[in-house]
Amino acid sequence: MDHLYALIMAGGGGTRLWPLSRKGRPKQMLPLVEERTMFEIAVERLEPLLPPERICVVTGREHVDQLSQLVPHIPRENFIVEPFGQDTGPAVGLGTVHIQQRDPDAVIAVVTADQHIADKEKFRRVLAAAGELAQQGQIVTLGISPSFPSTGFGYIKRGEPLAQVGGFQAYHSAEFTEKPDQRTAIHFMASGLYTWNSGMFIWKADQVLDEFKRQQPDMYAILTEIGQAVGQPEYEATLDRLWSTLKRISVDFAVMEQAQNVAVIPVDIGWSDVGSWATLFEVLDGDLNGNVSRGEVQGGHVKIDTRETLIVSERMVVTIGIEDIVIVDTDDVLLVCHRDRSQDVRQVVNQLKDAGDDKHL
Amino acid sequence: MDHLYALIMAGGGGTRLWPLSRKGRPKQMLPLVEERTMFEIAVERLEPLLPPERICVVTGREHVDQLSQLVPHIPRENFIVEPFGQDTGPAVGLGTVHIQQRDPDAVIAVVTADQHIADKEKFRRVLAAAGELAQQGQIVTLGISPSFPSTGFGYIKRGEPLAQVGGFQAYHSAEFTEKPDQRTAIHFMASGLYTWNSGMFIWKADQVLDEFKRQQPDMYAILTEIGQAVGQPEYEATLDRLWSTLKRISVDFAVMEQAQNVAVIPVDIGWSDVGSWATLFEVLDGDLNGNVSRGEVQGGHVKIDTRETLIVSERMVVTIGIEDIVIVDTDDVLLVCHRDRSQDVRQVVNQLKDAGDDKHL
Repeated sequence: MDHLYALIMAGGGGTRLWPLSRKGRPKQMLPLVEERTMFEIAVERLEPLLPPERICVVTGREHVDQLSQLVPHIPRENFIVEPFGQDTGPAVGLGTVHIQQRDPDAVIAVVTADQHIADKEKFRRVLAAAGELAQQGQIVTLGISPSFPSTGFGYIKRGEPLAQVGGFQAYHSAEFTEKPDQRTAIHFMASGLYTWNSGMFIWKADQVLDEFKRQQPDMYAILTEIGQAVGQPEYEATLDRLWSTLKRISVDFAVMEQAQNVAVIPVDIGWSDVGSWATLFEVLDGDLNGNVSRGEVQGGHVKIDTRETLIVSERMVVTIGIEDIVIVDTDDVLLVCHRDRSQDVRQVVNQLKDAGDDKHL
Repeated sequence: MDHLYALIMAGGGGTRLWPLSRKGRPKQMLPLVEERTMFEIAVERLEPLLPPERICVVTGREHVDQLSQLVPHIPRENFIVEPFGQDTGPAVGLGTVHIQQRDPDAVIAVVTADQHIADKEKFRRVLAAAGELAQQGQIVTLGISPSFPSTGFGYIKRGEPLAQVGGFQAYHSAEFTEKPDQRTAIHFMASGLYTWNSGMFIWKADQVLDEFKRQQPDMYAILTEIGQAVGQPEYEATLDRLWSTLKRISVDFAVMEQAQNVAVIPVDIGWSDVGSWATLFEVLDGDLNGNVSRGEVQGGHVKIDTRETLIVSERMVVTIGIEDIVIVDTDDVLLVCHRDRSQDVRQVVNQLKDAGDDKHL
């Protein structure tokens, strides 16, 4: 598939893994699951499938230097820079016009930089299969088999079977659903027809732009003007002038939910969004007592009668008689949180935002 | 009582409040209960009773500068220096010969530097009463009314009533008992006859030296030689030469348990040895949720659904959904410990000692 490109979405500045992840050091820049950063791993896991020239990255101006230094073999021009963070709609649109400028027949796999995928080989196989299907005119979504009735993800309902491709069964997509309530999520999961919307899509560049044209004509006009400036001296000025006029909207809302010819491939690739300390904890292998240590250096983490506890710290940490606790120890903030309450970190981050406490954000 | 002196025992280098207390920064140098260090408070609470000239301190060579800077109004010559830490027997002996050299009729109240006393006024009253009794030839111990059947303290059994003095009832001391087992401790407490050995004694200097002479003749000979050198040019050399020849023994074993004319005054002065994080926690006033913060600076301690938790940290600390936890956050070590397990800190300290990890001790 000489026309298959990856577009890694690396613009996020999330703080769900606060206080380790910060505005200036988002999740994808942290070595959370493995020794290297999540961004490096996001690039590496694509490489057996794609040459560096066809791995592109959308990210913010403040992050591009750091990210490109992490993967120096990826051509610098493959880093597509957002002047400031909009939502995923503008980001995907910008990446798409860049790639389409380069290769009008491009098939683009939009993938994430800050999610964990345990089965990398299967991930590549399903991307290749989805690429074939996209080539045939389908907008393909990867649907993650739900492991619990999450109220934190969008869901995709599958319709009639569409095709067998590369060992995977693809279906027509019947419906996108936003984050459901608990009752609905349980119903979804029980039905066996729903998968989580992973935020990973595989599609032909021109087909997506057609959907923008049909569903978001204003955005389409702006994106086209930006696309025409790619490679021209006036590109930066054009981008800076037009970027803020794009609608702040997710790619799902912008084009996906009403798109034609949408397919879903349900797949189990050991996917996790690593969206909270508890989810990170699940992804990591614990010791015999279920404890996980990250960042342990000399002096180490001394655990006495400690169970199911996650310790993220580069200092000496001593725990005695505790269970189900998450300890995240950074230079200026210490978090000690019950494992089941790690989503409430968001509450603290919001308080900091309200208080204008940029130092700790 | 012009002959009443205090001898503050400030030589300890305990690590029971590790990692805040360290070899080089023992408990008495920490502002644990109030804003000032425990040593400053130990001096202050004596001052309405005694002039600075009659407040003496026994401490180690490595601590004397720091301690004397904390209480500059106490004459520097009142700091009696141990060349290195022995047990309380040699320390009390050294302090006693110093004071006796100065005032042959001295009555000495041996008091502690690192224990909490809530009712300071009553403490002074009982010291004065004990001083009167000591003047009459009694070796007086202050017995703390036990608040629970502790296995961590020695006990003093009272015998027949001896005298009413200054509003306190003194008894003949019937027996000293070392730390009992749980069953015995419960029995002691139920009997109503036992009090905790607070380690505070009030006695005439010459009477104590007589007990050394009778019970520890070798120590007595050495102490006498040191005493004769006090104020002489050869004092330092004499002390250095003889100090290591003194027996490493507690004052209880050395003279107290077999002394004649021992009295006990049971008293409730809100005493705590602050011997663990849990005991410190008990002494401090909590907020509505039973939480206590120490060292809180700007940024502060943010407690969400947090109960009965002690936080000692000068950083921003966020706790979510935890209960009965002690968090002690120092520059190089973080302790997160269940409240009921804080005595196990000792286990860690011992491991560090075994490993020769002086950095963290």
